[in-house]
Formats: sequence, C-alpha cells, structure tokens
Amino acid sequence: MPTFRIDGHPPAEVYKLLVSAVVPRPIAWVSTLSEEGIANLAPYSFFNVASIDPPVLMFAPQMAPQPDGGARTKDTLANLRATGECVVHIVPHTLADAMNQTSAAWPADTSEFEACGLTPVPSESVAPPRVAEAPVSFGDGPRAGQAGFVRIALAHLTDGATANGRYADTHLLDPVGRLGGTGYVRVKDGVFDLERPTVDMGSAK
Amino acid sequence: MPTFRIDGHPPAEVYKLLVSAVVPRPIAWVSTLSEEGIANLAPYSFFNVASIDPPVLMFAPQMAPQPDGGARTKDTLANLRATGECVVHIVPHTLADAMNQTSAAWPADTSEFEACGLTPVPSESVAPPRVAEAPVSFGDGPRAGQAGFVRIALAHLTDGATANGRYADTHLLDPVGRLGGTGYVRVKDGVFDLERPTVDMGSAK
Repeated sequence: MPTFRIDGHPPAEVYKLLVSAVVPRPIAWVSTLSEEGIANLAPYSFFNVASIDPPVLMFAPQMAPQPDGGARTKDTLANLRATGECVVHIVPHTLADAMNQTSAAWPADTSEFEACGLTPVPSESVAPPRVAEAPVSFGDGPRAGQAGFVRIALAHLTDGATANGRYADTHLLDPVGRLGGTGYVRVKDGVFDLERPTVDMGSAK
Repeated sequence: MPTFRIDGHPPAEVYKLLVSAVVPRPIAWVSTLSEEGIANLAPYSFFNVASIDPPVLMFAPQMAPQPDGGARTKDTLANLRATGECVVHIVPHTLADAMNQTSAAWPADTSEFEACGLTPVPSESVAPPRVAEAPVSFGDGPRAGQAGFVRIALAHLTDGATANGRYADTHLLDPVGRLGGTGYVRVKDGVFDLERPTVDMGSAK
C-alpha cells in the first residue's frame, strides 16, 4: 500500500494526488468585475458549501503558475479583494466546453464572456454580471465575502433546472463534476439513491 | 426564472437548495477519537481541497438537528476540538452502503466501526484509526487542524486504487459523490475528458 509523505513532494505532485482522490468535485463558475470594469469568468473546483446558516459558499483559487516558474494571483481573487462581489454559477453538461474555455489563461484585460461567447446579464444585487446561459447562480449581497468565502443572498434557478421552483432537480440540472487530470463526469447515468439510515438501538452494542 | 431570496427562507429550505445545486460533492469519511477513546466515523459532503501548499483539506460539519427541535455539535467536530486529530477517507462504490450506515444517529458511546462492520487499523502519525477497507486516506500530522481545516501529512493509497503508486486512478478508485436528497452518483459511466485550453491570442479581442 503506497504511503505518500506530503512533505517529501513538490506542490505539483501534491496537487496531482489531491485532485485525483478528492472527487467528484463541484464546479463554481465565478464572475467578478475588475476595478476597471472588465468582467471575468473562471471555474474553480475547490468549491463547496461552507455553511447553511448563515448561507456561505467557499471556493479556493490557487495561485496560477507562470511560464517563468513563478505564480500570480488569479484575476478572480484579485477582483474579489478589490470589489468584494461575485456571482457563483453551476455548470450543466451543455456548458462544459464553454466553462473549459474560460479556464484558459486569458489576459486580465480580456473578458471571458466576450472571448468565449457567453451572454452577460445584469445581476440584481451585485455589480458583476450573471451568465445568462447558466441554470443556477448565487449572488452575494452587500455583506460581501472575504477571499474565497462568499455569503450569498440570492439564488437564481432557470425554469429548466427546477421542478418545484424551490430547488434544483438533478436530472434537469444535468451538472458536471471535476476529476483529476483532464477528467470530468456528467452526473446522469450513475445516479442512485440510498435511504437515510436510522439507528436500530437493538443492534447498537 | 425563480429567484430564491435566502433571507426569506428557513435554514431547512436553504439546505435543500444548496445541496441540490452544489453537486456533485466529494465525500470525506472522517474518523476521530473521543477523549474516552471511542472511535467515531462519519461522512461529510461539504468537503474539498482548501489549499495545495500547505496541503489542507476542508470539511464543514453542520449542527445535527435533534428530535426536540434543537441542534447539537456532531461527534466528529466535538472530537476534533478535543483531540485535534482525524483521518479523512475517500469512499469507493463498494463502501457506499457502509458509509451511509455510519451517517445514522449512533450514540456518542457507540463506535461506527463496530456498529457498521468496518475494520479499524492503527494510523501511522495520529491516534484515530484508519478504515482498513478504504482505498485512500489522509492523515493529519501533529500540527493538527482547527475545526474543519485539516492540514495533512500522509496519504495512503491501496494498491487497488492507484496505477502508478503516486496518485489515484479514477476507474480503479470507483468513487461516489453526493447529490441532493437521498441521491448519490457513481463516477464511472459519465466520465469524459476536456483538453486544457490554451489562449489563441489572435481570437482574444
């Protein structure tokens, strides 16, 4: 059984291990605005719910490796620090290619909305635009998040993503998750249910 | 298009919305020891990588609703606060039922290892036992994490979960992810690849 001693490995190897094992990961497709007003859109799979009450999402942008061997802060995080606002979208299978395109190293003065053919629409309570094509989006309110922790005030669901108007339907949402390497998973054929277990005190010794 | 104003809804409704939309979620199957030495094991799907360098995992145990309408701290979090140590395991499809059983409301003085037929084996650098049956586990070192943030020092992969001894192979790992309600997804049939995009500066306006 291989034992991987984290301290003995460079971050690039630790990265490969963690993204291969912590799977499947949900994808936050995050729009922000730079101080100059350029809309940025980029995907992050170190993402999840951090808290229900208060409602907080967490995502962790890592430093972006540079050709010279250094690293720089991702535009998303720089924008969040400057403006305190973002919109977090969920990615359906139909938008997987567009989402992937927004992960390229676009220059900071290029909007991924324009470069990748996505439609920005005004958000209700924050300045960054929403992606019109995305089925679910979460906007943070004026109590804006710190870097990576986003308190949310509004959620938008398209009619096509919900059966009851209150929460998303997995089959209608048709989401994708992130795996290691270049891998993704479409959440469709492998879906199954497990009934919530109850403790039979007679069997608990 | 439904707009869900978070402030207008009780936490139970916010929970349903977030777990239905933030999908698929990886599952941390976390072992801890109580101060009395009872081994606890429970799954958490508000879980992801928080950082590569330093290597940090994050999981967010929510309060456990009680029959009387109140809520109490999960045993995992109480144990982490008391002892500062845990082991985080990844759940393959073959262990989905056992994982689900450990999510039941077992009394704090019952070990889920025994109640659910899992084999505890000693960990190398921390006191909580590992699950012998689990293909990947991460142990935190003596610089133990704060509640929910776990700095890891060791990773164990079974031979059956890795093709190169360095990181997990998705098909060999055969992991499950968490959806909303009682839903899970087996990461198998829906796997696909997207090549990492490169920016064609000619197309970036």
